[in-house]
Amino acid sequence: MENLSPDLFLDSLRWRYATKAFDPQQTIPEKTWSAIEDSLVLTPSSFGLQPWHFLVITNDEIKAELLPHSWNQTQVTECSHYVVLAAKTQIGEAEIQEWVDRITEIRGDSPASLNGYREMMSGFMTQMNADEIRNWARLQTYIALGQLMTTAAALGIDACPMEGFVPPEYDRILDLPAKGLTASVACALGYRDKDDKYADLAKVRFEKKALVSRL
Amino acid sequence: MENLSPDLFLDSLRWRYATKAFDPQQTIPEKTWSAIEDSLVLTPSSFGLQPWHFLVITNDEIKAELLPHSWNQTQVTECSHYVVLAAKTQIGEAEIQEWVDRITEIRGDSPASLNGYREMMSGFMTQMNADEIRNWARLQTYIALGQLMTTAAALGIDACPMEGFVPPEYDRILDLPAKGLTASVACALGYRDKDDKYADLAKVRFEKKALVSRL
Repeated sequence: MENLSPDLFLDSLRWRYATKAFDPQQTIPEKTWSAIEDSLVLTPSSFGLQPWHFLVITNDEIKAELLPHSWNQTQVTECSHYVVLAAKTQIGEAEIQEWVDRITEIRGDSPASLNGYREMMSGFMTQMNADEIRNWARLQTYIALGQLMTTAAALGIDACPMEGFVPPEYDRILDLPAKGLTASVACALGYRDKDDKYADLAKVRFEKKALVSRL
Repeated sequence: MENLSPDLFLDSLRWRYATKAFDPQQTIPEKTWSAIEDSLVLTPSSFGLQPWHFLVITNDEIKAELLPHSWNQTQVTECSHYVVLAAKTQIGEAEIQEWVDRITEIRGDSPASLNGYREMMSGFMTQMNADEIRNWARLQTYIALGQLMTTAAALGIDACPMEGFVPPEYDRILDLPAKGLTASVACALGYRDKDDKYADLAKVRFEKKALVSRL
């Protein structure tokens, strides 16, 4: 596999910023968008359980309906693709079985050979109460958010992560409870507007020595 | 900025896997490692608050001390660099002030011009209780985990995310409470051992149509 140059990759991460104004006239081309979706699908998760679903919203009416429940941040309506990362609200034997079945299907393992793995996952889940399982599933969606933003930057697509919304309203509008899901976090993607004054501000991070210790 | 090819980038994400056996003889070169640290520092976070600290452990004695509290997963001791992603346990006025000061330092804004931003952050934090703030800070560290794994893959470095450890033991060994931190999640990085039987298994994800909906 051809590796990427560290300098080139870091350039992408320095180029990105939390885009405040998107150009509503620009749409991410299908080939690029499809790669971003593939990156979401490939996101690693604990045990591989993928306790999530990604809603990709381009429909103007749905975006407009979400806007007032998104602190009226216009990234929701002006971006090209608005992604709601939803977490599963329950992970029990049925969800573990679904995962084991999928492994069997892809790798051709015998179901019996996965009994140990299944029991480990069941043990992990049964030691958590319902709230802890929801928190755990939500944490996994933030891995997906991280991979999504990093991928977008590498491909030259602008993004703005969005925590500022009312999850019960998103859940209602997107009919998520019926699917065993709840809105965890969101991300607007597209192209920065040429007048976004935030685009040219210096990136601010704490000093490396304040954030990283070597032991 | 030069964008990366979607196909090349996806190749990296398909190449990566949760490495079970690292080659203990191979060390990540300093230039590459430094780029990975830069990527950690550049991770986006809610409000930009960076409620985290990253401990990079290469010391064999510390790794050995962590091992029994890591479900004895030998990635801890055999990897080149073991990263513990720690979350701040408190985010109050002092932490917000530190962030505002840093913005002022880098961008030369007047402190007064940031009053609105400061009040928005304070308002967000004061509506959460202590547990909710800890959960929120922990979520942010998972964005960093996502960016870390994606960056490692792009640079051809193997990684294994690690949730399976005993946080209070990590906190004790790494003296985290005294620094207002707690261990959130970890990641072993280095090079896959040539005998890791997991390296060549087919990657298993649910079907794209089961994970992504377009609206």
